[in-house]
Amino acid sequence: MVENPFDLENLQTLHRQVAQRDAVYLAEELGHLEPPERAKVFRLLAKDKAMAVFQLLDAAHQEELLASLRDEQVFNLVESLDPDDRVRLLDEMPAAVARKLLAGLSPREQRMTATLLGYSEESAGRIMTPEFVRLRPGMTVSQAMAYIRQRAPVAETIYVLPVTDDELRLVGVVELKQLLLAADEDQVGSLMNPGARCIRADEDQEAAVRLLQAADLLAIPVVDSEKRLVGLITVDDAMDVLLAEESEDLARVGGAEPLGRPYFSVSIIELVRSRVTWLLVLILAAVITVQVLSIFEATLQAVATLALFIPLLLNTGGNCGAQSATTMVRALATGEVRLGDLLRVIGRESLVGLLLGTTLGLLSLAPVWWFAGRPIAMVVALTLFTVCTLSTLIGSLLPLLARRVGVDPAVASAPFVTTFVDAVGLLVYFLIAQVILDF
Amino acid sequence: MVENPFDLENLQTLHRQVAQRDAVYLAEELGHLEPPERAKVFRLLAKDKAMAVFQLLDAAHQEELLASLRDEQVFNLVESLDPDDRVRLLDEMPAAVARKLLAGLSPREQRMTATLLGYSEESAGRIMTPEFVRLRPGMTVSQAMAYIRQRAPVAETIYVLPVTDDELRLVGVVELKQLLLAADEDQVGSLMNPGARCIRADEDQEAAVRLLQAADLLAIPVVDSEKRLVGLITVDDAMDVLLAEESEDLARVGGAEPLGRPYFSVSIIELVRSRVTWLLVLILAAVITVQVLSIFEATLQAVATLALFIPLLLNTGGNCGAQSATTMVRALATGEVRLGDLLRVIGRESLVGLLLGTTLGLLSLAPVWWFAGRPIAMVVALTLFTVCTLSTLIGSLLPLLARRVGVDPAVASAPFVTTFVDAVGLLVYFLIAQVILDF
Repeated sequence: MVENPFDLENLQTLHRQVAQRDAVYLAEELGHLEPPERAKVFRLLAKDKAMAVFQLLDAAHQEELLASLRDEQVFNLVESLDPDDRVRLLDEMPAAVARKLLAGLSPREQRMTATLLGYSEESAGRIMTPEFVRLRPGMTVSQAMAYIRQRAPVAETIYVLPVTDDELRLVGVVELKQLLLAADEDQVGSLMNPGARCIRADEDQEAAVRLLQAADLLAIPVVDSEKRLVGLITVDDAMDVLLAEESEDLARVGGAEPLGRPYFSVSIIELVRSRVTWLLVLILAAVITVQVLSIFEATLQAVATLALFIPLLLNTGGNCGAQSATTMVRALATGEVRLGDLLRVIGRESLVGLLLGTTLGLLSLAPVWWFAGRPIAMVVALTLFTVCTLSTLIGSLLPLLARRVGVDPAVASAPFVTTFVDAVGLLVYFLIAQVILDF
Repeated sequence: MVENPFDLENLQTLHRQVAQRDAVYLAEELGHLEPPERAKVFRLLAKDKAMAVFQLLDAAHQEELLASLRDEQVFNLVESLDPDDRVRLLDEMPAAVARKLLAGLSPREQRMTATLLGYSEESAGRIMTPEFVRLRPGMTVSQAMAYIRQRAPVAETIYVLPVTDDELRLVGVVELKQLLLAADEDQVGSLMNPGARCIRADEDQEAAVRLLQAADLLAIPVVDSEKRLVGLITVDDAMDVLLAEESEDLARVGGAEPLGRPYFSVSIIELVRSRVTWLLVLILAAVITVQVLSIFEATLQAVATLALFIPLLLNTGGNCGAQSATTMVRALATGEVRLGDLLRVIGRESLVGLLLGTTLGLLSLAPVWWFAGRPIAMVVALTLFTVCTLSTLIGSLLPLLARRVGVDPAVASAPFVTTFVDAVGLLVYFLIAQVILDF
């Protein structure tokens, strides 16, 4: 079934195949192999290519590969990583293995890695690179260019150049493009943008990433609490964070803990664990539906037809709620909606809910009338109207409330909304039924 | 409620406020104002700042703003946009307005815009910039640098430099960093990477974006079917596409049509429209649940207690299905899972489903026994086991099947899985009940 681009049986063919392909292609295909095959192919790579491929691999795959290599190779590969990528890899590893690896690095790389590891896991400091090129405002363009050439081999980027004063405080940012267009004797201080945005190392990664994206920047300087420059976040790392955050949101919207690793490198047990807690919590919440129904057991017994519409009604209510919940989760994530917009959101979503409820209620009347008679049709239509209105409103408010109390809005999304709406929906359904069917 | 950073009552204060703030901040805050206020603040900006802010705004907000400005200002702003951003703006507009705007551009900008508009909407060609710096392999580094300096003011990026032959076919890519580190007399042809990845203009945007991200590139060359260079996709545009695609996925997972615009610039009617079609489709699908239940109406009438557990069982089944569906949608979107992995996915998810089903089934036994007696407890536990197993499998397969038949996997996600699982779950529940309760 799996079309394998490598001939794993014939070492000579395999050797030729990996030699022909570029690092990007190899990294992608390696991600799709089983661990032993991945190690087999990787060991055939020439040293430089091995490093290039290794850098492009996911941290989970990197860790796995290292386990199958000789110590010397391991240290070489880890030493060759950018400090921020190295930190991501170390985060994947058991603490003891990580310590051993760290100890094997050169003092310079060790120092830089330790600095990054000092920042908390979701902070901007954790993903910044400490290998940047720092300019001084008093430098001339030709001095700056000479200095950039000298530092380029170790710096992660030379296209965005932070400028600092004598106390190493950030005073501006200049782009390489501006230097290239300026005269040799111009001063960096006159070319730089003194108002350029920066971010504090202890701020949330996501804030940094959104800023990079909103401002179309290639990198953003990271400073400490005294505005001293400590690093630079580059756009490639920002993109990775963006993808990871999206995966997290999507997992939570689907009612599971984020895996944080590629699907196939997560074991069955881990998959079960990431799902079972949520399921249990949701089941506990759903016990309310059993309670509500048991209150109305007599009504149910008398008019069993009412039971026929329970799944349809709850399903529709759940869908309305899920729609507005996911809309809101997304709008909050992108910053389109903020907490301050609460009232505007309530107004809009109430109106949307009313319109959806009216439409669906009216459309349901005729078919249910034909199927189950007029009284039941009226109960169903009125319930659809009420449930759609309520669940749209609930769906939009729960993520906002979650954000308000400091919980990831995605957590308060579809599955919880559905469970909540189920209980409310049943209550509404039977209350309306009791009134209309005159119990 | 909304904390407004601008004093809209006092024009003089407002003027000072906008003069102090940088373009990124202004663009962000403008996005949160109501349309008339947005126009009021924007009109106070100095010409250069207005252009910078305008470029950073969302296309929907750009369009709205243009409607409130004088023609001359409109043409200036649109002329100042990069061709790819301009195309995004034109896409937002009614055709007649777009034509009028296009006609008002300088011939050069008009030509470039028309080229991009010629590519289909989801294609790589649509988001590429035609304003790049093209080098020749025979150029020396100093010739190349002189040429780059000359072209820099109009090019969207000078950091990634495609190299073409006499027929304008792409033969390699060189980074500005490599040129800076090379000797003046080195030739571009010896520095470039001849195996650098490129993408065809008619390929899907998402493919380009994933490649940029996977390979940590700042830009990727776009070629036509004869490998002639036609443009460059830069990382800032890739990030925008990434965010848009994520919003789309999330909306579909939540069971609504993607809005494609910031939440507050979508009218109530558009919001309703984006949701109502899906709801109707899902209601039609949910009619099966009514059918299934009406088959078992006699059983229900005899043992009304069975009805009490319907919402809880369906809810749990739906959650299991939603979990694996969203996991799979994400894994497909990031390329972690491909169609060829179908069998492996079936194997893993069956096992996960079995484990989840066993856990939840066993855990439910005691409480339901206490609440409703032994026979019902056995029915509920067995149903939970079967439904969890089935729905996990269904949830993982539907997105894969959708991809197989060329539909966006996100469409076949949570809401459809839930509806499908509801029908199957009811059938399972009553069949098990009939056997155990001996009807």
